[in-house]
Amino acid sequence: MLVQKYKDMLSGKSVIRELSEFATARGKEIGYENVFDYSLGNPSVPVPQEFTDTMIKLLQTMDTQSLHGYSPSLSIPSVREKVAASLERRFGIPYKKEHVFMTSGAAGAIAHAVRLVTVPGDEILTFAPFFPEYHPYVDLSGAVLKVVPPEYENFQINFEKAEEMMTEKVMAVLVNTPNNPTGVVYSEETLKKLSALMTKKSKEYGHPIYLITDEPYREIVFGGIDAPCVSKYYDNSLMCYSFSKSLSIPGERIGYLAVNPACEEAETLINMCGQISRGIGHNCPSSIIQLAVGECVDMTADLSVYEKNMNLIYNELKDLGIKVVKPDGTFYIFPKAPEDDAKAFSKKALKYDLILVPADTFGAPGYFRMAYCIDTEKVERSLPVLRKFLKENY
Amino acid sequence: MLVQKYKDMLSGKSVIRELSEFATARGKEIGYENVFDYSLGNPSVPVPQEFTDTMIKLLQTMDTQSLHGYSPSLSIPSVREKVAASLERRFGIPYKKEHVFMTSGAAGAIAHAVRLVTVPGDEILTFAPFFPEYHPYVDLSGAVLKVVPPEYENFQINFEKAEEMMTEKVMAVLVNTPNNPTGVVYSEETLKKLSALMTKKSKEYGHPIYLITDEPYREIVFGGIDAPCVSKYYDNSLMCYSFSKSLSIPGERIGYLAVNPACEEAETLINMCGQISRGIGHNCPSSIIQLAVGECVDMTADLSVYEKNMNLIYNELKDLGIKVVKPDGTFYIFPKAPEDDAKAFSKKALKYDLILVPADTFGAPGYFRMAYCIDTEKVERSLPVLRKFLKENY
Repeated sequence: MLVQKYKDMLSGKSVIRELSEFATARGKEIGYENVFDYSLGNPSVPVPQEFTDTMIKLLQTMDTQSLHGYSPSLSIPSVREKVAASLERRFGIPYKKEHVFMTSGAAGAIAHAVRLVTVPGDEILTFAPFFPEYHPYVDLSGAVLKVVPPEYENFQINFEKAEEMMTEKVMAVLVNTPNNPTGVVYSEETLKKLSALMTKKSKEYGHPIYLITDEPYREIVFGGIDAPCVSKYYDNSLMCYSFSKSLSIPGERIGYLAVNPACEEAETLINMCGQISRGIGHNCPSSIIQLAVGECVDMTADLSVYEKNMNLIYNELKDLGIKVVKPDGTFYIFPKAPEDDAKAFSKKALKYDLILVPADTFGAPGYFRMAYCIDTEKVERSLPVLRKFLKENY
Repeated sequence: MLVQKYKDMLSGKSVIRELSEFATARGKEIGYENVFDYSLGNPSVPVPQEFTDTMIKLLQTMDTQSLHGYSPSLSIPSVREKVAASLERRFGIPYKKEHVFMTSGAAGAIAHAVRLVTVPGDEILTFAPFFPEYHPYVDLSGAVLKVVPPEYENFQINFEKAEEMMTEKVMAVLVNTPNNPTGVVYSEETLKKLSALMTKKSKEYGHPIYLITDEPYREIVFGGIDAPCVSKYYDNSLMCYSFSKSLSIPGERIGYLAVNPACEEAETLINMCGQISRGIGHNCPSSIIQLAVGECVDMTADLSVYEKNMNLIYNELKDLGIKVVKPDGTFYIFPKAPEDDAKAFSKKALKYDLILVPADTFGAPGYFRMAYCIDTEKVERSLPVLRKFLKENY
């Protein structure tokens, strides 16, 4: 007897993955350099040399049993301490190691956060456009993901709908800023309004509504803006971070869950993570990777290429009369397709070897996503093709 | 609202962990070299130099985006291929990469296996004495672990009870050989009988009963015996392996799930692992660690110290008139305490700075476990103390 839900998922292939596979196949025909593949959010910049040097130094100097031995069940204390100190320095929130739990990337952090604050049947709200992987992250834990429709003008939050949907069954709100797929950063005003709404509803229902903040793009912000730290605006907040994008190491599966020190029973929540881990077979990220990011906690790869690419694409889209909100960060941009059916639009683009992802699964039909984590040279070559495609079809 | 089940678990501290913490604290008083700490199953031998060299070579020679980039959702194909080829070479079973999924150690493999073949409420049988972590592994998935009482003579399987307990609700049987805590290897006769029973019951109930085999100690066997490969005896078998003990790298959290090629829908089961992963936030082990074990797949650390330690302890226990089955492998031995209350026995031993784990949580009250993954020199110094303790108290 196979478990039907997982089997069913096999037939529901992700649109992003399908397009990415098409791009790879087409690349084999005409050379991958001629396929303008904007499908995958895979970091394109090299890992900082300091990270590589740190790894080699750990291997050359540390006793192997300390380097590769079991982590304590709440992960390596010295690493938790370094992460907490970095967060305190940067955001002025008094995190201590007791508030930090190292995870398998942001996905691992969200897996723990969801299980910390919901039981099966409870609801978690998120705001469209949203990262489609939130569905398996939440649904397979037994909780239910409810998606608040978009605020189309600036891709902030549709508060009218949010208030309506924040019923007594909602135990958590999951936000992603800087946002995948829009690239937008939630403003201070948005975060204050969200905090006020959640505080009001928590009181009304007599139970806390937790704020789970998914922040893997925190270090990729443009125009020198200072992205507000979500946890500053709400006490019962669980920060989910990944080093995948900041250090360009997505395959190493390393990130953390940091519970706001002002959160109710903050340290108990972190202790509970150790128990959740036993059940999901997580049992800490790789020990050498934990130690290496501990040494590189304030470092990033050279992320400047993403802003350069964004400006090139944004200016071209505006010039072409496409409706688009200017991204504040990430490596995504989220324009409105020039026809209502974004799938049909994306299909037509394929004939020009332009791989654009229709955004129906992101909760914003009629839009499309471009992941511009590719070489600037390729972005430049793609723009005349994009222009040609739009001129010939719309 | 905290999730009560995880919170409740915080108060139920593991006996092993408590004893280990006592040993550490006592070590600070009298010097850790004077505490005869047999509590923790933590590999004591150095990592092979070849593993370290492989890691350094990967860091020095590979392009950083290939080395640290996202794994495909079913893990890295070249690594899966190397694992499959190694299994085929060693056991003559035609594993291909399509039957292998890399996991966060054996715990991660079991987490996937359990979710592959059960839904909440289904039962999984295991045989006492058993590794107590099976409870969270199984119970937190929603399935129910049922423990068949021990066969005390040789610590093989109590088939009378097994047959009685293998009801229609049982969807899987979880075995661990070489066994923690007994050190015993299940004989060919045992495996054949188990296979026959499971085949009969599968037919009777009209659904397959899967055999989940937990094999982290496979490479630690004594006296040149050839431990039978469980998967040879049963088609619907899911092998859970970890490199933690064989390469002495438990902190790196690396292992695999290998589905028997003869298993019903074997490749579908592996594909389903990718979906389960999304739900539990696993998303593959560290990419560099996957690549490194791929290069070291047939290598082990120098494991000979464990057999040396076992012989010293076994001979001493026999000489002292203690009832004990001679281990065939692992780094555990599982003697009968000289009084019925193994907890009281363990408590008395503490006065001699002997850390012995009472086996109630292993499903065999009246026994105790010694984890002899410590220096031989310390084992030798501990024996007169053990003798003194027994002479003075029993």
